[in-house]
Amino acid sequence: MSAVLLSGKQLAKTIKQKAQHEARDLEADGLRPTLAVVVATDDGSTHWYVRSIEGTAESAGISCRIVDLGPDATGQVLALVLKDLSEDSSVNGIILQTPLPPGVGTDEMVGHIAPEKDVDGVNPLSLGRLAVGQPSFAPATARAVIEILDHFHIPLAGRNVVVIGRSAVVGKPLSLLLLERDAAVTVCHSRSGPLEKYTKTADVVVVAAGRTGLLNGGHVSSGAIVIDVGTNVLPDGSLVGDVDAGSVRGIAAALTPVPGGVGSVTTSLLLLHTTEAAREQLRALVPGLAG
Amino acid sequence: MSAVLLSGKQLAKTIKQKAQHEARDLEADGLRPTLAVVVATDDGSTHWYVRSIEGTAESAGISCRIVDLGPDATGQVLALVLKDLSEDSSVNGIILQTPLPPGVGTDEMVGHIAPEKDVDGVNPLSLGRLAVGQPSFAPATARAVIEILDHFHIPLAGRNVVVIGRSAVVGKPLSLLLLERDAAVTVCHSRSGPLEKYTKTADVVVVAAGRTGLLNGGHVSSGAIVIDVGTNVLPDGSLVGDVDAGSVRGIAAALTPVPGGVGSVTTSLLLLHTTEAAREQLRALVPGLAG
Repeated sequence: MSAVLLSGKQLAKTIKQKAQHEARDLEADGLRPTLAVVVATDDGSTHWYVRSIEGTAESAGISCRIVDLGPDATGQVLALVLKDLSEDSSVNGIILQTPLPPGVGTDEMVGHIAPEKDVDGVNPLSLGRLAVGQPSFAPATARAVIEILDHFHIPLAGRNVVVIGRSAVVGKPLSLLLLERDAAVTVCHSRSGPLEKYTKTADVVVVAAGRTGLLNGGHVSSGAIVIDVGTNVLPDGSLVGDVDAGSVRGIAAALTPVPGGVGSVTTSLLLLHTTEAAREQLRALVPGLAG
Repeated sequence: MSAVLLSGKQLAKTIKQKAQHEARDLEADGLRPTLAVVVATDDGSTHWYVRSIEGTAESAGISCRIVDLGPDATGQVLALVLKDLSEDSSVNGIILQTPLPPGVGTDEMVGHIAPEKDVDGVNPLSLGRLAVGQPSFAPATARAVIEILDHFHIPLAGRNVVVIGRSAVVGKPLSLLLLERDAAVTVCHSRSGPLEKYTKTADVVVVAAGRTGLLNGGHVSSGAIVIDVGTNVLPDGSLVGDVDAGSVRGIAAALTPVPGGVGSVTTSLLLLHTTEAAREQLRALVPGLAG
């Protein structure tokens, strides 16, 4: 028996179409949704990724404004640009690409992105609002996990869900989203001891640790749903997750592939967040507007 | 065999003494630490609690400024007062007592407390900063749990810790603090299914659900450390926790009493946070100052 593969491709398409519909509605209301992408690196793969976001956004009717500050941008300039974009009414969503220039702290910079435009949920205030149940954007990757689980009708309420990884961009926000969905949530990490102690009894295991082959078939039980958030680039350039898919597929009930799983949904969600942000900003400007 | 009682009284005294030393040092540097307590209710027990904070603070050399706005204060006035206190350089820490007047949202109000003066960690930004590892104050009750565990030399790294309750004031911030201490952290709640599924294998169980008798001896294993955060007032006026102490004492290795456990440490931590806030604010004003 082999695990069902939970592809994210159809879901990514559906979410992109939803963003496209929203963008069309917004345009009818006089607003073309716009996503600003701030870059301050000459890293090739970052630029490749930014062009890919731009292409996907434009094809969904969302403008992409790429603000390339170059690899020598100072923290001062970056902060100023992020503040400007936060106040610019023609910009609805803002993402800040990493890596940043040496010496510029990501933690400090993301605090300058206005929460209502923080479509990738990187500002600590966005995370705090998520924790207290106030409106805010979750990091797209964290939401992508929930969307995939929902897409395949995998119940979460009352379930034993184990998240491996405690990062501020995936593990922590995801555990908040899972709690909101009434799961019992366990967060494990590199120092929490043997994984199988927690993963063996889990209904759902989400791996977001950034370590190739971290979770193998010996860690999970039959019936488990395994979501692989890892994106590790091997020396030959190929992309693999955190799951040893070969062994896990023989045991678990279902598994997301890498590539073609969680990652494929993330960009679509960034676009959907941008249209959601634009709709809220339009509502705030024109309180009487329907929709 | 009966569980060891983990009293918080000695620890509370030690922390209060530390705050007192800090206050003396600050006074020597020309600053008398000041805690503002904002009240907008005529609830008797709230006023009783505020007077108790005031007494403890004054005895530790910390001034307490009680700002009583009365039970009819509007959200506008409350917001203005909190913003004023946030900007007032003679105030180092701010706490907002609940309940608030009907129609005034706590969530909205706490956002007006400057994070550097938010000594009870109620602003969502404080929680977000805690999540990403930036300096911030944790809610005093959440930190009190960690302090008690440390006081009794109970290890956390690599341990299986179960937190019952997912509130923004205890469960969530506490799970962040426990992750920071390298525990594997499971958060359960009223909808996560049978408690024993998680608590039976836990090294440490923290109960913060606000439900009398929620955890009983059948839920825990021998060797477990049980921390009771509950403070439930019975019809006869007596205070009990969330733990059925009678049955848990026969099974668990150790248990915090209610009263005299976590709660007794909380006020001392509010005072210590106030001196910590004052020290940081003094440092920001006089960068060269030692200490």
